[in-house]
Amino acid sequence: MKAAQFYGAKDIRVTDVPWPEPKENEALVAIEWCGICGSDLHEYIMGGVIIPTKENPHPITKDYLPVTMGHEFCGRIISAPEGSNLSSGQAVMVDPRINCGSCSRCNASWTNTCRSWGFKGFSGTGGGFSEAVAVDAKMCYPLPDSVDLSLAALIEPLAVAWHAIEICDIPDWADKSVLILGGGPVGIAHVHVLRARGCKRILVSEPTATRAAQNKEVADEVFNPLIMDVAGKCRELTNGEGVDVVFDCAGIQKAMDTGLDALKVKGTYMNVAAWETPIVVPQFQWMPKELTLKASMAYNDKHFKETVDAFVAGKFKDVEKMVTSRIYIDDISTKGFDELVTNKDKHIKILVTTHKDKL
Amino acid sequence: MKAAQFYGAKDIRVTDVPWPEPKENEALVAIEWCGICGSDLHEYIMGGVIIPTKENPHPITKDYLPVTMGHEFCGRIISAPEGSNLSSGQAVMVDPRINCGSCSRCNASWTNTCRSWGFKGFSGTGGGFSEAVAVDAKMCYPLPDSVDLSLAALIEPLAVAWHAIEICDIPDWADKSVLILGGGPVGIAHVHVLRARGCKRILVSEPTATRAAQNKEVADEVFNPLIMDVAGKCRELTNGEGVDVVFDCAGIQKAMDTGLDALKVKGTYMNVAAWETPIVVPQFQWMPKELTLKASMAYNDKHFKETVDAFVAGKFKDVEKMVTSRIYIDDISTKGFDELVTNKDKHIKILVTTHKDKL
Repeated sequence: MKAAQFYGAKDIRVTDVPWPEPKENEALVAIEWCGICGSDLHEYIMGGVIIPTKENPHPITKDYLPVTMGHEFCGRIISAPEGSNLSSGQAVMVDPRINCGSCSRCNASWTNTCRSWGFKGFSGTGGGFSEAVAVDAKMCYPLPDSVDLSLAALIEPLAVAWHAIEICDIPDWADKSVLILGGGPVGIAHVHVLRARGCKRILVSEPTATRAAQNKEVADEVFNPLIMDVAGKCRELTNGEGVDVVFDCAGIQKAMDTGLDALKVKGTYMNVAAWETPIVVPQFQWMPKELTLKASMAYNDKHFKETVDAFVAGKFKDVEKMVTSRIYIDDISTKGFDELVTNKDKHIKILVTTHKDKL
Repeated sequence: MKAAQFYGAKDIRVTDVPWPEPKENEALVAIEWCGICGSDLHEYIMGGVIIPTKENPHPITKDYLPVTMGHEFCGRIISAPEGSNLSSGQAVMVDPRINCGSCSRCNASWTNTCRSWGFKGFSGTGGGFSEAVAVDAKMCYPLPDSVDLSLAALIEPLAVAWHAIEICDIPDWADKSVLILGGGPVGIAHVHVLRARGCKRILVSEPTATRAAQNKEVADEVFNPLIMDVAGKCRELTNGEGVDVVFDCAGIQKAMDTGLDALKVKGTYMNVAAWETPIVVPQFQWMPKELTLKASMAYNDKHFKETVDAFVAGKFKDVEKMVTSRIYIDDISTKGFDELVTNKDKHIKILVTTHKDKL
């Protein structure tokens, strides 16, 4: 079957790979759509940060590069283990995570922090940029016919935001003001989830015009950090106090500096971005305001399920606007990865399919 | 009267200054003992980090250098405002903080995060390295005769630890393992408070022999980070999981790196140290373990009072061992500050007095 495999930095090849052979506990899923994630782009640019090499194969899959990429995918069941709640033709969203299921962290329901964490699409055993994948049946979430399968792959980035928002430990968002640093796919996913959770005021810092315009449709205000004092603007809108929570979806020094400056006393900074360069904590913001700095790692089972449920219930208004391009798998390097490198700012989410008839 | 005043880096002069004139709300306190704090030493070495200059006077006191230093002090009331619960001769511990009392942060009981925060001993209007000081009567905490006034100045560093421990938001320490990075005065104050709070396991990382020996008397284990894998040792003692909380009382890159490595998943790193150089967050510890990073700023009214109460109740066993030297104010530069610069590792706390007869 067709699959887009990662060989190294800027080297993704669409090749023919063997059809997956599901194990006893696995369902075989025909993939309909798979999104290109910022993490995929990190690997593409930097070359094998997460993806295992022959010298260091993944501890669970034992696999290493080349691996099939893509972890934001939905599709339909081809076959499923007996006794599962899945049947042929059933639409599903897949939780793409791989974990050992037996370590103390998995046992404490924090499967996302498993010592051997991995993902379909990074760690081997297939991925979403292909025709089909074999996955543990319990990682498949059935979707009713009412759900538009051409949008369901968005559940994955929404789950990333859902988890980060949940682990802020804020019981009620109705009186909270939030600043999101970076209005890319993860940033705008936070806007959608916070909107669904009834957040009072959602502010976004985004320097590019196209992404700013996209964020403006769902957020309350969008600031351009290149020409505006974003932290000052946040204080203006909050009686001089600053925002309650900052979500850093940018992962650069200036974002952390602005974020900590924009926070009110005792506020929470949540990092959701992978950093490409080391970042220093501005201690003269951190300490005198006694800020809490947290970091979020993907999502756990509970939060993935909650995101699926919210998606099925139609809680994410206008979420279709996140999709800025749909492409055929053969074009994944040029119209997918290279396009995101060259014209990153024009895009939120590019979805990939192996089905020409769906384009 | 005699007072030790800060003029600039390595320039502390014992001079004659006017006797303080208390305002209507102020008590006049004859100082008995005042400790030299790590923050004092920072100012002495680096020269005016917190202490206001003529160009930037303190917003509340309007004062600037030279200022009388010393903020860890106790003494006896000389005079007090009518209607206060203070009378002449009463032993008191002083909360040395200065705050506006009217901003939103003060109104929310987080006086320690006041936008105009200051301290007696840093921000003008007198300090503990002198014969007497005028302070707001409500900042004076009466001590019963049972309290040894020659030790009561220790309440201030203990309050720093008390506050940091409180804002970890851990209701019960009985099943918690803790690592303290740096066994100096603030580090060992944490050991004492955690011991008083019934903490299960208190581990300390301290490279110098003298401080290590002092910590060994109150902590469960002391590790030498120069020759031991401290994070590995912490895992060994916690079934491979890591400690629940780290208190960083060192404030260097290696401490943060070790601290985050030593923490269990979802653990808390609490920074209590002022940094002299920028520190980078090790993201590959922070994010996959979803650690919480907090910072603590002095203490608020509630936590200062609770520390006084615990001290009066005798909760800090063997706390007298923190005092490694007692000196006369005339010797404050040589036997105080220079001694701490040259022989820092031999000391925990040096106490200063203007009363020769108390030595």
